[in-house]
Amino acid sequence: MNIAIKLTSPKGYRALVPETVSDYLASSRDLATRLGGKPKEWQVREVGDGNLNLVFIIEGPASSLCLKQALPYVRLVGESWPLPLSRAWFEHLALTEEAKYAPRFVPATHYYDDTMALTVMEYLTPHIILRKGLIQGIKYPLVAKHLGEFLALTLYHTSDLFLPAEIKKKKIADFADNTAMCKISEDLIFDEPYFKAPMNRHSVGLDEVSVSFQNDADLKDAVQEMKWRFLNHAEAMIHGDLHTGSVMVTENDTRAIDPEFAFFGPMGFDIGAIIGNFLLAYFSQPGHAKKSGEREAYADWILAQIPVLWQSFSVLFADLCQQRTSQEPGGHVYAPRVLAMREKAIKQRLDAIWSDTLGFAGAKIIRRTLGLAHVEDMESIEDLKLRASCERKALLFAKELLLNRENYTTPSTLVDAARLK
Amino acid sequence: MNIAIKLTSPKGYRALVPETVSDYLASSRDLATRLGGKPKEWQVREVGDGNLNLVFIIEGPASSLCLKQALPYVRLVGESWPLPLSRAWFEHLALTEEAKYAPRFVPATHYYDDTMALTVMEYLTPHIILRKGLIQGIKYPLVAKHLGEFLALTLYHTSDLFLPAEIKKKKIADFADNTAMCKISEDLIFDEPYFKAPMNRHSVGLDEVSVSFQNDADLKDAVQEMKWRFLNHAEAMIHGDLHTGSVMVTENDTRAIDPEFAFFGPMGFDIGAIIGNFLLAYFSQPGHAKKSGEREAYADWILAQIPVLWQSFSVLFADLCQQRTSQEPGGHVYAPRVLAMREKAIKQRLDAIWSDTLGFAGAKIIRRTLGLAHVEDMESIEDLKLRASCERKALLFAKELLLNRENYTTPSTLVDAARLK
Repeated sequence: MNIAIKLTSPKGYRALVPETVSDYLASSRDLATRLGGKPKEWQVREVGDGNLNLVFIIEGPASSLCLKQALPYVRLVGESWPLPLSRAWFEHLALTEEAKYAPRFVPATHYYDDTMALTVMEYLTPHIILRKGLIQGIKYPLVAKHLGEFLALTLYHTSDLFLPAEIKKKKIADFADNTAMCKISEDLIFDEPYFKAPMNRHSVGLDEVSVSFQNDADLKDAVQEMKWRFLNHAEAMIHGDLHTGSVMVTENDTRAIDPEFAFFGPMGFDIGAIIGNFLLAYFSQPGHAKKSGEREAYADWILAQIPVLWQSFSVLFADLCQQRTSQEPGGHVYAPRVLAMREKAIKQRLDAIWSDTLGFAGAKIIRRTLGLAHVEDMESIEDLKLRASCERKALLFAKELLLNRENYTTPSTLVDAARLK
Repeated sequence: MNIAIKLTSPKGYRALVPETVSDYLASSRDLATRLGGKPKEWQVREVGDGNLNLVFIIEGPASSLCLKQALPYVRLVGESWPLPLSRAWFEHLALTEEAKYAPRFVPATHYYDDTMALTVMEYLTPHIILRKGLIQGIKYPLVAKHLGEFLALTLYHTSDLFLPAEIKKKKIADFADNTAMCKISEDLIFDEPYFKAPMNRHSVGLDEVSVSFQNDADLKDAVQEMKWRFLNHAEAMIHGDLHTGSVMVTENDTRAIDPEFAFFGPMGFDIGAIIGNFLLAYFSQPGHAKKSGEREAYADWILAQIPVLWQSFSVLFADLCQQRTSQEPGGHVYAPRVLAMREKAIKQRLDAIWSDTLGFAGAKIIRRTLGLAHVEDMESIEDLKLRASCERKALLFAKELLLNRENYTTPSTLVDAARLK
């Protein structure tokens, strides 16, 4: 693992290595107390397998901690692609905001160091990354319900339904400088899969579909419309990268991690990201069967999570809307002095979010199959022909979502259509 | 005219009076040179008839200037309603931005003083306020064409079609602090007409329609949906208050003034504001006829300006979209490397803007008839019964625009429907 770094970074920043982590942590009495014992007793290992950062787990006699440090470049690509350390600040800001409204669904943070661009947080154990669980065929009975609740709590409470306009505008401005991270999303999700971008890649056997997508002006129009919304619709603070690799789970617990792409954007982007990734997991299942049909029931379970997630989100979101009273300071649309939000108005808001969700889900599936960054759900399928077959189905379904999303007015119509692919 | 002011304002700020203006201007060599002669030769008069500010005209031997100074409160209401002087800064910022792309449609600015919250600009003469011209029954052959061009140039060039995302986000943040002005719009346009707000007023004879609007949940839903877009859709830098009182005209020249409500919002808000005010002017015409039918032809001319304005806007906006090339740095949606904007995509964008335009036009008509601030088009009708009749027609048409805007897919359908009221 190459973690040697040229120190082209701000004064005081240095990338940690396992050997320097204990000394660093020992300088905080609070962290040292949490770990217990003496620094030399602490076990440190680097576990970062993401695209961008260093992640260390530190185990002490009393407890364990997780330290996440930003690197001044994209880890997946290397030093040739610099990336500002400020993303650690935006992640910290987003974690803080999420913890206000949905503390049980995010890791607790204990320490933030702006110069070092690092956060020390709760070590989640025995949690694993949801994506890995889905590849292994593990059912998480609460994950969809939890994710729906996390989304409702964070999106509602950072929208104009809850925040007074002047506070929301201030928060929008606070995140406005997270442009480098937004630009990654803008380029990789909405643009690069649709032209011969140098970093694109796709599986053997998908040349034809890749070329056909790049020549499909209607599809590209639909994707650019989603980009317009991504750039313009500052509805709520969104996580910005809520795929199944950003969710850690046990049977009873669900946590959303890594919100460094956070900014004020369309609510449907987060919901579409997670649903798009459930769909990728679904379409990948035949590739994980050791014998024919082995994964069919599990694939059905994955698909069934989509309506559960939407139901959980929409019921809680609607409850929050209906519980608004004139006693609360409250947001400035549907201010209670003017109009209590009726079911009809709530449905109209939810319908708009659902429509966005479908478009963003489609765009996310395509970017993870024809763009730079792929998903392990598909990459781990060793039979290349089978992998291409799984990916092709996902791609064609994604295209359908982008072009004809008005046909999928409910999660169950979506699920039925996916099953037919 | 009460322009005595308690100096509760920042250090260095003092509200000017006609007697102190010349001394103030004389301290700038550039301004003194523009005016020519000696300060004692300069003729100063205060002409502000708006709701918020002081406006002085200064005539010197060589030329004349206009000085606009913000007061620390709402002039229309008095010191009981404080308003931040920072709006002078945002007006300056907006004028500067507009002048980059549409210099012939805004007044040239010569001087800005942040502490004094004032701008010295070109004195527009023999221009008059468009609203006054429409009340007098004067035809301006170019005004609709010019306004369409002004809107296309300013809205296109501050959108993601032209600005790279990181620059646009920076500009959004620059305007994010103009919240006090946005709050006035949010309250007065979208909320107060729809409940018994203390400052609401309406003409004798409109009690019934006022009550019926306040009890119409479907109408209020439609208005709150427009408020959602106003709060969330940061499509472009909008003027924010583009009524016919913010436009100065001669037969050949058109200038948009007073952009102190500017921020990044939905494009349709500006277009809806001006179209809503043309509709108010149209519906007020019977009240200005000295004999029956005298204003019919003129009313028709006003109505005909709406398609002319939209045509002018949409043709130039489409041209700008189509002229984008990969050589330009350019905006980040429909980046040329991905997809040249086809007619279909441009039409889709314009259709979305038109739909917003109708909703905002309706909201603007209602706020100017049932809310705090009314328009001279109606207020100057002395026959109270006739005034109420004109206003009632405008209100019912506005309601129709808000509730059924999908029925008015083109400006000509809008015009036909207005004529039938």
